[in-house]
Amino acid sequence: MMITESPTPMDQISVEKIKAAIRDIPDFPKPGILFKDITTVLRDPILFQHMTDYFYHLLKDKNIQYVVGIESRGFILGCPLAYRLGAGFVPIRKTGKLPGMVERHEYDLEYGSDIVEIHKDAIEPNARVVLIDDLLATGGTAAASSTLLKRLDVDLVSILFMIELGFLNGMEKLPKEVNTHAMITY
Amino acid sequence: MMITESPTPMDQISVEKIKAAIRDIPDFPKPGILFKDITTVLRDPILFQHMTDYFYHLLKDKNIQYVVGIESRGFILGCPLAYRLGAGFVPIRKTGKLPGMVERHEYDLEYGSDIVEIHKDAIEPNARVVLIDDLLATGGTAAASSTLLKRLDVDLVSILFMIELGFLNGMEKLPKEVNTHAMITY
Repeated sequence: MMITESPTPMDQISVEKIKAAIRDIPDFPKPGILFKDITTVLRDPILFQHMTDYFYHLLKDKNIQYVVGIESRGFILGCPLAYRLGAGFVPIRKTGKLPGMVERHEYDLEYGSDIVEIHKDAIEPNARVVLIDDLLATGGTAAASSTLLKRLDVDLVSILFMIELGFLNGMEKLPKEVNTHAMITY
Repeated sequence: MMITESPTPMDQISVEKIKAAIRDIPDFPKPGILFKDITTVLRDPILFQHMTDYFYHLLKDKNIQYVVGIESRGFILGCPLAYRLGAGFVPIRKTGKLPGMVERHEYDLEYGSDIVEIHKDAIEPNARVVLIDDLLATGGTAAASSTLLKRLDVDLVSILFMIELGFLNGMEKLPKEVNTHAMITY
């Protein structure tokens, strides 16, 4: 199958097809959690293309220079998007994975804390950037990633997610002045 | 910048540009190791496109149905390639990350062992598959990933890497009957 140029933004029917392909896995990673498994979307070549094209159409007139993806499912969404936009790709990773000089931000989890890092020299000041991840839950990781990008003085144009768990109110943790959007909200 | 159709396979000059952009980080992740940092390639929109197009041109006539990427830098190479080919994307992950029923393979490292997993239902038997990762070192992870794909009875067409550390002889661990190739060999 060849890549095809999508002439119009993906319509609601395609989003519904993607939503229908997401698989619910009960009690993962721990009892009581209903995990949204997106691998059933990724393995479908049509849905994988539609997912990427959906975000492309949101961004294509915004002169995005860098797509920043959060480890590791944010890489899966962010890399084809960067390729499609003709932008660079920059990873945000958990601590100790990036080999160069990093900006680091520690943030609180329900139990304990976590750390995200970005290379200090990854993005030049004022560059136009989009941040992307697969899932917005409580918003801790996305908020911490926004903080890293602020420290690099970039122009954070948009924060995008494939899935938002709306009942956890994660959007409220994200910077108010930045456009935020999820493809699918539960 | 818009995506452009590359009319011909990327020439040696472009590979040399990618090679020149790879950054050497001494003593990472531990003393005595010279780490090949590819983030300096990824952040460059032209080089990121050339890298993806290089692999695309190797595969475009091979009817690839699935690109399998190894966590997590294999996601960075594999996802835009899957998008470009019009193929599905399937992740191989470290233990405990995939939520569904998995095939699992444990393999020996220099000290200790590691485990790779793939969803049992990710790929149907006889489907045409390419496996990709950023770096071939001793070959343990790639060989273990090949073993997982054999168990799913797929047709493993090719195993591709961005970088091969030739002096570690990792290619010798990979299945003899499968085409293998690295963009850059040190």
